[in-house]
Amino acid sequence: MRADCDVCRAEGFAARSQVVVRHGPCEVQATLYQTEGDDILALDEIGLSETAWNLLGVDEGEEVEIAHPTALESLAQVRRRIYGNRLDLTAFSQIVEDVVAGRYTDVHLAAFLTASAALPLDEEETTGLTRAMVNVGEQLRWDAPIVLDKHCIGGLPGNRTTPIVVAIVAANGLVMPKTSSRAITSPAGTADMMETLAPVELDIDMLRRVVAAEGGCVAWGGAVDLSPADDIFVRIERELDVDTEGQLIASVLSKKISAGSTHVVIDIPVGMAAKVRSEEAGTRLADRISGVAARFGLSATCFLSDGSQPVGRGIGPALEAFDVLAVLQNAGNAPDDLRQRAVTLAGAALEIGGKAEAGQGGALAMKTLTTGRAWDKFQAICKAQGGLRVPPKASQRYTISAKQAGRVTRIDNRKVSRLAKLAGAPASKAAGISMAVRLGDEVERGQPLLHVHAATRGELAYALDYAKRAGDLILLEAKDETQP
Amino acid sequence: MRADCDVCRAEGFAARSQVVVRHGPCEVQATLYQTEGDDILALDEIGLSETAWNLLGVDEGEEVEIAHPTALESLAQVRRRIYGNRLDLTAFSQIVEDVVAGRYTDVHLAAFLTASAALPLDEEETTGLTRAMVNVGEQLRWDAPIVLDKHCIGGLPGNRTTPIVVAIVAANGLVMPKTSSRAITSPAGTADMMETLAPVELDIDMLRRVVAAEGGCVAWGGAVDLSPADDIFVRIERELDVDTEGQLIASVLSKKISAGSTHVVIDIPVGMAAKVRSEEAGTRLADRISGVAARFGLSATCFLSDGSQPVGRGIGPALEAFDVLAVLQNAGNAPDDLRQRAVTLAGAALEIGGKAEAGQGGALAMKTLTTGRAWDKFQAICKAQGGLRVPPKASQRYTISAKQAGRVTRIDNRKVSRLAKLAGAPASKAAGISMAVRLGDEVERGQPLLHVHAATRGELAYALDYAKRAGDLILLEAKDETQP
Repeated sequence: MRADCDVCRAEGFAARSQVVVRHGPCEVQATLYQTEGDDILALDEIGLSETAWNLLGVDEGEEVEIAHPTALESLAQVRRRIYGNRLDLTAFSQIVEDVVAGRYTDVHLAAFLTASAALPLDEEETTGLTRAMVNVGEQLRWDAPIVLDKHCIGGLPGNRTTPIVVAIVAANGLVMPKTSSRAITSPAGTADMMETLAPVELDIDMLRRVVAAEGGCVAWGGAVDLSPADDIFVRIERELDVDTEGQLIASVLSKKISAGSTHVVIDIPVGMAAKVRSEEAGTRLADRISGVAARFGLSATCFLSDGSQPVGRGIGPALEAFDVLAVLQNAGNAPDDLRQRAVTLAGAALEIGGKAEAGQGGALAMKTLTTGRAWDKFQAICKAQGGLRVPPKASQRYTISAKQAGRVTRIDNRKVSRLAKLAGAPASKAAGISMAVRLGDEVERGQPLLHVHAATRGELAYALDYAKRAGDLILLEAKDETQP
Repeated sequence: MRADCDVCRAEGFAARSQVVVRHGPCEVQATLYQTEGDDILALDEIGLSETAWNLLGVDEGEEVEIAHPTALESLAQVRRRIYGNRLDLTAFSQIVEDVVAGRYTDVHLAAFLTASAALPLDEEETTGLTRAMVNVGEQLRWDAPIVLDKHCIGGLPGNRTTPIVVAIVAANGLVMPKTSSRAITSPAGTADMMETLAPVELDIDMLRRVVAAEGGCVAWGGAVDLSPADDIFVRIERELDVDTEGQLIASVLSKKISAGSTHVVIDIPVGMAAKVRSEEAGTRLADRISGVAARFGLSATCFLSDGSQPVGRGIGPALEAFDVLAVLQNAGNAPDDLRQRAVTLAGAALEIGGKAEAGQGGALAMKTLTTGRAWDKFQAICKAQGGLRVPPKASQRYTISAKQAGRVTRIDNRKVSRLAKLAGAPASKAAGISMAVRLGDEVERGQPLLHVHAATRGELAYALDYAKRAGDLILLEAKDETQP
């Protein structure tokens, strides 16, 4: 708005004031930016962001009303939490309702999330936050006694088992309406990866149709408004690059509960550079997840898995999709670690769903892959979601090679992920890393260690600048020739 | 910038990306907003905020360069702090340098401040942060063995002793180059109040000239770039409405140390609704302040004072200025509590400066007031700062009256401050509250309790809406007529 317009003067609005814009029954809260002079706005005009235009449903020339937002009582709860007081369901509900209504500024959101990280949410609080997040969104119900779901507690680049698990489970006649998120702090979320293979922004009707026809789907959860608070928190967590246990559990479980799942299989990679560092911490997290899930009548089966190195070769939406396709198509170069992980999780789901005896699920899952039934089902699901796509390839590619001969003894997942993000992933679908080595490999001097893929020269240069400064992404232990 | 321009496409910039804009040797970091179509920007054009225009020193038609900001290593320190690790001087210096360079987004700033509130900064950390904040700003040096300063640990509405103390101390030939801040979470800071009486945005040369001529000044610290990080932190603290001990001490002491003070007198109001709630907490804070100050060779003398109710009558920049003028001019209606508090602090300063024997400072301070020497000195200081001003009066005024007869037993400082802020203070100089009663007063039904002052009807309505919902701002204990 114009700084010198009547409304700004009468209401005392200054630059960066929070204001409410109303048009009929619609309203949005917005940050005010001010202009001077007639170049952009007349005194009785207001400029809106595309988001605000759409939310308000206004046309050029229509009138809107501008007001002070009402004082946010729920911020008192955020302040109480900052100072170490525990919050209950009522407090979390107040906060989450204001968050979803768009009344929190980035400063408020960052304070709430930081406070929940500095003094971690306990089980009672995690349950309260989960319930509050479920309550503000849509909740799906399915006409099936067992509705399966799966989740991976991130932190492990390339661990893209979901599309494979869904294809195997649905091919065996079980129901698995999978909604996935986009990346939080990683170079790709399942939704980002799946989007390179098929449309993922399905509305609720479309999602129901896909699941009714094929038994499974791989859709983006945000498009069906399941736990909408989560997507807002995720944006801030991404900017902060923090992701804490309580928020993580509330995020995961609120999506599963809203999606109407009855049973969820959870993969918890454990390793020095994964999100979970030790088996002990993994077991504790598994207990916490199962405990909170049980309060909602949801059965959670957790698996601790090897989190010492990236899974498959690709890291980034399209690069991971190529690995998934190789496994589904039984290609000769299909990454075996990705296949084995998917088979373990799908096997557990098949046993839960009564399609295999205890201990026999893995064999059935593998057979579903090798006979091509999983690939057939996956193509059918993609078609139902709007059509199978060919993932894009990056125009820019750079190979980082070994500066010395040696054995690969450590891969720094965090640095590798960082590199993939700086190369443009996940916003740039084709960007990321493809790994050329695995732990234990012996490499010669000059042999490729990994390839950086980017959509633009600027992003490639930006990533390589980081690679130069970051120290060892892949640690090589030199063969000591003097030793016998 | 245009979403479809070459730079956004080549560099992968999206809405709300952080970008660096360079022009010759100048650069600013900015948040990117994108436009579509030719209405506002051509493909090779960029729009800048007024602040960015000024910082870059560009003219219409000149070329600027846009780049990705380099990855912020200091955010790793913020994350370490969120997870409960203590930071050292090196870490604080990295953070504060990036903050002052404008590289932190609101999300980053809020996370840093929240983390420093959730696990309070210890003495070592407070010292580190203080040193880091001093190092990034200007540092004044004065040609005097004793350079006096004063400070009040806020939280007490209307406690505006600074101009009175400076006038008394300077009238007695001592040096007191006072720089003050604007409001953090209160309806007025000393700089906001003083600005209604004289210009306060003095640059360093001007400040030196005023102090050389008159021995004292009351200037805004932000204009002389003393501890510039503080003003950035303050903006976020204001939005969060949090103000923690460690940040508070670093904020206060970094300003005093940068201002070249050798001795500082500190007023710590203690009361249920003040920032410090108990004498014990006040004593602890005083010890912490003195301890950290001593590490910088600064002598801090702390006074605990009565924080049970607002000081004087006015709350808000201009309304407080009228109280200050009344005391300086020895007016019949001058608020005695404000006068007594100023005399105590000025007396201590006069003793520290060797102008009075121990125990005699208060008497000398009072004499300086009653003889009119303080008023003369204050006028001279205002004239040197650019001219004495008449504070503005609000066009809108509303009286809140007693709904029953009774005795005033409690005044809720926080609610009263909130009301003053909602009425428009401190942005609207004339806005705020004037108190019509004090603790212990007997009032009749319908007798005024306080007056709300606002510059616009919108702000008045907004404040009164809060007053209706807020419950008792002033608690009246009814006389129980049935008791003997």
